[in-house]
Amino acid sequence: MTTQLEQEIMSQPETIARLLDHEVQHIKKIVESLPPFQYILIAARGSSDNAGIYAQYAWSTMAGYQVAMATPSVQTLYHTSPRMTGALVVGISQSGQSPDIVAVLDEAKRQGRPTIAVTNDGTSPLAKAADHVVELHAGVEKSVAATKTYTAQLAVMAIFAAVWSASEQRMTELHQLPELLEATLQGSASIRQKAERYRYLSYCSVIGRGYNYATAFELALKLKELNYIITTPYSSADFRHGPIATIDEGEPVALILPDGAVLDDMFDLARTLKERRAELLIISDNASALELATTPLPLVRPAAEWLSPLSAIIPGQLLAMYTAMSRGYQVDTPRGLNKVTLTK
Amino acid sequence: MTTQLEQEIMSQPETIARLLDHEVQHIKKIVESLPPFQYILIAARGSSDNAGIYAQYAWSTMAGYQVAMATPSVQTLYHTSPRMTGALVVGISQSGQSPDIVAVLDEAKRQGRPTIAVTNDGTSPLAKAADHVVELHAGVEKSVAATKTYTAQLAVMAIFAAVWSASEQRMTELHQLPELLEATLQGSASIRQKAERYRYLSYCSVIGRGYNYATAFELALKLKELNYIITTPYSSADFRHGPIATIDEGEPVALILPDGAVLDDMFDLARTLKERRAELLIISDNASALELATTPLPLVRPAAEWLSPLSAIIPGQLLAMYTAMSRGYQVDTPRGLNKVTLTK
Repeated sequence: MTTQLEQEIMSQPETIARLLDHEVQHIKKIVESLPPFQYILIAARGSSDNAGIYAQYAWSTMAGYQVAMATPSVQTLYHTSPRMTGALVVGISQSGQSPDIVAVLDEAKRQGRPTIAVTNDGTSPLAKAADHVVELHAGVEKSVAATKTYTAQLAVMAIFAAVWSASEQRMTELHQLPELLEATLQGSASIRQKAERYRYLSYCSVIGRGYNYATAFELALKLKELNYIITTPYSSADFRHGPIATIDEGEPVALILPDGAVLDDMFDLARTLKERRAELLIISDNASALELATTPLPLVRPAAEWLSPLSAIIPGQLLAMYTAMSRGYQVDTPRGLNKVTLTK
Repeated sequence: MTTQLEQEIMSQPETIARLLDHEVQHIKKIVESLPPFQYILIAARGSSDNAGIYAQYAWSTMAGYQVAMATPSVQTLYHTSPRMTGALVVGISQSGQSPDIVAVLDEAKRQGRPTIAVTNDGTSPLAKAADHVVELHAGVEKSVAATKTYTAQLAVMAIFAAVWSASEQRMTELHQLPELLEATLQGSASIRQKAERYRYLSYCSVIGRGYNYATAFELALKLKELNYIITTPYSSADFRHGPIATIDEGEPVALILPDGAVLDDMFDLARTLKERRAELLIISDNASALELATTPLPLVRPAAEWLSPLSAIIPGQLLAMYTAMSRGYQVDTPRGLNKVTLTK
């Protein structure tokens, strides 16, 4: 009997195909109707926050916008209202329920700023608070750990980047996403067996950079939610500023290092870590990078770097799921978590 | 024989006193001379980045500015230049050397935006790149792990907040900082003995919120740098969105929860964690909060919440140092780290 989580992971190609069908034209219209703005403010929590991290990189490199991440407690706990002059305000939430995220959009509206909600529930409080709503079209996500709604959120961020940059090539690459994800899933069959090695893993560092800084955060979160492992995500640059001291012989480090602009920097770090005889789990489409790994997690279909976070998280989702299954854990209902988390 | 690290921790009251003497009037003049701006962009790495996190909260709650954290790889690896229209750009770096942080300020200058460098070296490349330089006056920091330069950076952020908010009361509270830190150091004598319990600690979660979200990051970083412990910092809200699943009986969690606007939320989380029989290390000036702790780390002198990050990190610095000493580690020269880290 298969789990909800497995079904939801496997449904990602069709979810993204449906999303592209419904939202590409819609997002073009939203972009045309937006008033001028100078920077973007994103409010999100959990996996949605990780999609926001992807947008930080995608929207700044491809559309030239600086992106700030909101700190909702400034409003909900300190009861202050920072000026949002010049900001486009985007709320991201699978459920659209969390009061602190809704509060940021309410305040933006009060200040007359444009707002966009990205959510899987078009009738949620977040959707009601926003000028524009982009739905994920992912269907109900039953497993507590977000998978298909995370990649759908990434796809929404990617569509905005492609529309803002008015690039035909990027639009073409976007429409190849369902095929890319399908090939990645099919090429990941060996992960079930590889996961057994990590049955007793109790902590792990996870490193990515640039577009895949988000992937490091999301893989770390999946390992926490499903395996109760203490995992810490880093950029390769931040890792060198202190945390690298934690790594000694046999210490586990997962690296997300697909080909692209960050490959040299990430590869250099992987080599340093290998010299320290760390145990490296490497998600990559680059053969030389995979050779450095104790556990290579190959991406069989190379992706344009800007879209690689959508395929690179898949081996991570599968690794987290199969490791949890090898522990006998309930992957659909991790201990101590609810599907909808309401934070102030 | 005392270590450099211990001397530097103990020197924090006099460092902050010197900084206040030299920089309060200077920062007033800088603020008067700034052109209009709509939001603030901060570029920093490591401990300096944690000081930037404090500024995110201090500058938005007290001065009403949204604060974005720069993603330097957008420039240094992707070779793109996001528009900084409307931004005041602030670089924070103890050494002022890291090329990626300097690159952000260079780009700001190219775009005609106002820039400020916060650094312990007024002749560094970062200082040379900026319109205005605020020095830390901390003297040479010899130990690899930043302590006195971190609290000095926090104090600089706090001075800007007080000047922008034009609050006489905050100015008065600022000038009480040296005394606050001195009392906190004197009230922390019991930590040396308490640290022994954590001789074999291998991982830990660290939680703070609001102004002390920065303290969670900085305590986590000290534990990593000095003890090679895998530590992950969280806000209490993000922790509830997934990572709380990792906590079971006996799992170690450090909480920074001084009195103030975030106390109720943090206290509620501490109670939940205690119900799960986690092992709680609690840094607080609140007696009820300390009662929940396995290891209470009391702040003997209550502080105004906005300045509490300067005193609340002190028990953390001491805990990280004494734990490392109980392991026989070299606290001044942690393995695999250099004082100046150059990242691209």
